[in-house]
Amino acid sequence: MNILDTIASPEDIKKLEAPRLKELSIEIREFLLENVAKTGGHLASNLGLVETTLAIHRVFDTAVDRLVFDVGHQCYVHKILTGRKEQFSTLRCLDGLSGFPKPEESIHDAAVAGHASSSVSVALGMAKARTLKDEPYSVLALIGDGALAGGLAYEGLCNAGSSGEPIIVILNDNGMSIDSNVGGISRLLSQQRVKPRYFEFKRRYRRLFSHFPALYRFNHRIKEWFKRILIPVTMFSDLGFHYLGPVDGHDLIQLEAVLRWAKELKEPVLVHVVTQKGRGYELAEKNPEAYHGVGTFDRENGLGEACHKDFSAAFGDCLTELAEKDESIVSISAAMCAGTGLSTFAEKYPDRFFDVGIAEGHAAAMAAGLAKQGLKPVFAVYSTFLQRSFDMLIHDIALSGLHVVLAVDRAGIVGRDGETHQGVFDVSYLSCVPRMAVMCPASYKELGEMLNLALYKIDGPVALRYPRGCEGEYSSENCDSATVILQEGEDITLVAYGTMINKVIEAGEILSQGDISVEIIKLNMINPIDKDKIIESLTKTGRLLCAEDVCAHGSIGSRLLEICARQGLCLKGSRTLDLGNGIVRQGEPEELLSLYGLDGEGIAFSAIELLVETMEEAEETAEEENEEDEA
Amino acid sequence: MNILDTIASPEDIKKLEAPRLKELSIEIREFLLENVAKTGGHLASNLGLVETTLAIHRVFDTAVDRLVFDVGHQCYVHKILTGRKEQFSTLRCLDGLSGFPKPEESIHDAAVAGHASSSVSVALGMAKARTLKDEPYSVLALIGDGALAGGLAYEGLCNAGSSGEPIIVILNDNGMSIDSNVGGISRLLSQQRVKPRYFEFKRRYRRLFSHFPALYRFNHRIKEWFKRILIPVTMFSDLGFHYLGPVDGHDLIQLEAVLRWAKELKEPVLVHVVTQKGRGYELAEKNPEAYHGVGTFDRENGLGEACHKDFSAAFGDCLTELAEKDESIVSISAAMCAGTGLSTFAEKYPDRFFDVGIAEGHAAAMAAGLAKQGLKPVFAVYSTFLQRSFDMLIHDIALSGLHVVLAVDRAGIVGRDGETHQGVFDVSYLSCVPRMAVMCPASYKELGEMLNLALYKIDGPVALRYPRGCEGEYSSENCDSATVILQEGEDITLVAYGTMINKVIEAGEILSQGDISVEIIKLNMINPIDKDKIIESLTKTGRLLCAEDVCAHGSIGSRLLEICARQGLCLKGSRTLDLGNGIVRQGEPEELLSLYGLDGEGIAFSAIELLVETMEEAEETAEEENEEDEA
Repeated sequence: MNILDTIASPEDIKKLEAPRLKELSIEIREFLLENVAKTGGHLASNLGLVETTLAIHRVFDTAVDRLVFDVGHQCYVHKILTGRKEQFSTLRCLDGLSGFPKPEESIHDAAVAGHASSSVSVALGMAKARTLKDEPYSVLALIGDGALAGGLAYEGLCNAGSSGEPIIVILNDNGMSIDSNVGGISRLLSQQRVKPRYFEFKRRYRRLFSHFPALYRFNHRIKEWFKRILIPVTMFSDLGFHYLGPVDGHDLIQLEAVLRWAKELKEPVLVHVVTQKGRGYELAEKNPEAYHGVGTFDRENGLGEACHKDFSAAFGDCLTELAEKDESIVSISAAMCAGTGLSTFAEKYPDRFFDVGIAEGHAAAMAAGLAKQGLKPVFAVYSTFLQRSFDMLIHDIALSGLHVVLAVDRAGIVGRDGETHQGVFDVSYLSCVPRMAVMCPASYKELGEMLNLALYKIDGPVALRYPRGCEGEYSSENCDSATVILQEGEDITLVAYGTMINKVIEAGEILSQGDISVEIIKLNMINPIDKDKIIESLTKTGRLLCAEDVCAHGSIGSRLLEICARQGLCLKGSRTLDLGNGIVRQGEPEELLSLYGLDGEGIAFSAIELLVETMEEAEETAEEENEEDEA
Repeated sequence: MNILDTIASPEDIKKLEAPRLKELSIEIREFLLENVAKTGGHLASNLGLVETTLAIHRVFDTAVDRLVFDVGHQCYVHKILTGRKEQFSTLRCLDGLSGFPKPEESIHDAAVAGHASSSVSVALGMAKARTLKDEPYSVLALIGDGALAGGLAYEGLCNAGSSGEPIIVILNDNGMSIDSNVGGISRLLSQQRVKPRYFEFKRRYRRLFSHFPALYRFNHRIKEWFKRILIPVTMFSDLGFHYLGPVDGHDLIQLEAVLRWAKELKEPVLVHVVTQKGRGYELAEKNPEAYHGVGTFDRENGLGEACHKDFSAAFGDCLTELAEKDESIVSISAAMCAGTGLSTFAEKYPDRFFDVGIAEGHAAAMAAGLAKQGLKPVFAVYSTFLQRSFDMLIHDIALSGLHVVLAVDRAGIVGRDGETHQGVFDVSYLSCVPRMAVMCPASYKELGEMLNLALYKIDGPVALRYPRGCEGEYSSENCDSATVILQEGEDITLVAYGTMINKVIEAGEILSQGDISVEIIKLNMINPIDKDKIIESLTKTGRLLCAEDVCAHGSIGSRLLEICARQGLCLKGSRTLDLGNGIVRQGEPEELLSLYGLDGEGIAFSAIELLVETMEEAEETAEEENEEDEA
């Protein structure tokens, strides 16, 4: 029996001795590789954190102590060690194990984490609560160097440092975030990394003098003076942290020692751990970026060719092509260059491409500056992360009516990343930004055409939203006007935008088999809504069904109903199909769409339901009228 | 003729010699005092920046060079010197001079600024555009030490520092932001401030060696070594900035010298200027916080007693009272302790009050941590600044359904602060946050009652939104249910929430004089909407008029129309009165309400219009029916 199988809870890790721990770390890497190869998920960062996670569980009790992850996809080892090993085959599946920390799943998960840079803030709140309630537990934040570029992390560090509140921030420094690290902070860290084995010296020194407190204090001043000469004072010390490190993140003994030390110090401590992303899997060590988030793959041969075309690639290709003819086009990414399809652009036009790191607020404000001085900035960003720029969209861009193009990728259901990553709010929050135009391509061709429109025909802020993944059956281009009638019919009006049009067309086909005459409207622009054709259609059919994979509040369906009411257009009936106002969980997009009744069949079913209801009503009314006439 | 009157444009400043400049600075302070005493506005920070602004205009040409303000209320001197002196009597008035930089107003205003910490990001965008277009101008960001606590500033500094892009960040360090400064950054700056006159030494040293380049280079290494011993390396150097300072912000000669130097350096430069807030007006020097933003006041005697009760005070009193009985209540402010009415709470419960500085994102995430560990956090924040927390509301609070109370102050029209500060988006963006309950007190009593409900009857995230200023005529308490019928009637249903109920009641009185029977509905909770009574009322009257001072998209009026359409309730007619989807300018709240038809008369007028229209229609229909019958 291997050791991993004997670990039922973190308590079992505490009993192991050094050689066994070493073996365990090998088994964990083996387990990770075997499972993630089958299910897909985040690999490289988890391989890098095996020893750190083991050391945390040896020193702390995460059922009581609070371990707050940052971004959170590096929580696999933690999940393996806290009783969730058996569920790894369901990782990131519908009803399966989440790829991110999830308090509902286990008492060992202290907080939801999927977006970057919030861990220190959340942990500080927890630490303050702990102190106020006079409880004895420790609070830890585990944050990567990439997330440290986010302003939120800095706000957290500033406040934690100056508060004096005992809190342990573990900086997992693997010298890269999702894309290669950028910005001053990475420069700062790299300076730290090359320092001599200062930590080891410090530890021995401290042990030596611990028996002679007076001598220690005398020496302390001399030491501080020396430290300032030998070692640049880190930003972390400046901010009020007791800095420990850098520590080899694959040396279990050193890790345990530094964490025990950190636990003893009743003040803000920053433990700087240097890890290797992809550690233990050669292919990932060589190319950690490629193995950051992966689909299923073959362990021996590594990742296959992954260059199929999707919306991100289509966007990148198209922008790169436009940029060739137009020097004023520049693009911005917030640490998602590859993810948003901008790699070629970045290679071809390095001076016109800005990867600002995980700093979406800055990206939007910087775009404002670029636009104001006469360039055409395109900020490519995932819908869920653009939430971080909400204020800057209003304050820095919209109030001045600046021409900034937002390429909103991963809009709608994103699938296996789950709750924290669903791009289901952008339709709502973008619509209330003054002057914001929002367009929704349904095919690659349309994406190209709309990007053209966004750059050359529209002034002011403009967003293009498109989903994760590929175009569907619908690959044509119909975007000459804001609203398009794709198919004419008499009985019911189906409205959709973006790739949801595929499902609506499917529904239309099902319905037409039942001799139902369906009118299909495709919205190319969802803000502002060009309503004339819609009203005309609804006046004819009297029945509206709108399908979209976004939250209900502020959805286009709700706005169409509002428009009807405003126009005094009384429908026979309506259905707005959306994701409701709750939280959208993980699962394959197709599974989730079915679950919400947003697949072709589901939409057809709702349409039939609506038709039946409204015909019954019509019949009843007719009957009543007949009765009245008879009476 | 005094000197100020001879300054028609910044070019005139460049011609002046030292003694005349000194005189000019006295005249400017005199002008500021005289005018702000009459109009109200931001005083202390502008008094502190007289010399810095003069020096900027002597070294740069803001018509071409780009000067990006941060927060922006410290732009008065800049406005005086750039041809807008004569308009100061209209400062912050409807159609008058803005209290913030405004590109529409002058070519000298590079960017809109009203929120904090965005200047470096915007300026970096401008600098990049400048370089890409190969244009020769300089780009400056002028940021206060308070704004430096915002994560956005850090994101900007990280990116600017590592980019190597020539850009000048002027840090206006007056040792305080709106409230006393907090966090690690203020600690860091105070260390810098006490340094010997390092800048002066550096300048002389540089001049001395400028004739001997080889010697300079040799000395440079020795100097760097000395510097590291004598002076802690600043965070700014770590981030890639050439650090110049600290410089006395009231020494025009030194200021000019350092700015000329900064202009020469073709790299990111940070100029650290130490200024005294309120400089030159004794009362403001002694109590700069009180003179940060002021109403009209008497110059000789200073500010009068300003302790009238408003919603902020009512909130603060009520929370402090509740906190006496409940130790689990804690409160958070983002540098707005006094503004949000929390001063007494902070004094009485210093351990349970957290002023996190200008860091709204952190405040929200920290609240999540506090709530998770069993406390009841109340985050008091202005509506417009809460936009910065949008993502954290979703990701850190709502996804876990944590019980965090948001006290959303300055909701709706804020008045003279204008475009950047209007709290008109929160109804839209809060509604799409999953599980978010939103309540709207219309009186102090209701605020107290609803705060009680928010803390003890509601689980999950909950927001209370209330306006700047005082309660109106309506001072009763009717919040037993989510929706209340204040007055019954037959002809039309008027719906409002919060203090807008005063205007609706006024309208109701006007209408009743014309024998119109008005039903008035007051919404206590606007998310989720309790719709039964509303539908019942609208079924009876057939006419809806909803009045609110928020943006149109996502407004309650639009949601009521949606509800009607969803229910198949065909209204005779409707009017939704709101602020539209444009930008809401500055002016007295009452003036703006009138402008948008949201005063009592305006609402009554819209109601009559609606009644007339729908009666005509009804008559027409009746006539048509008659005709048909006759035929």
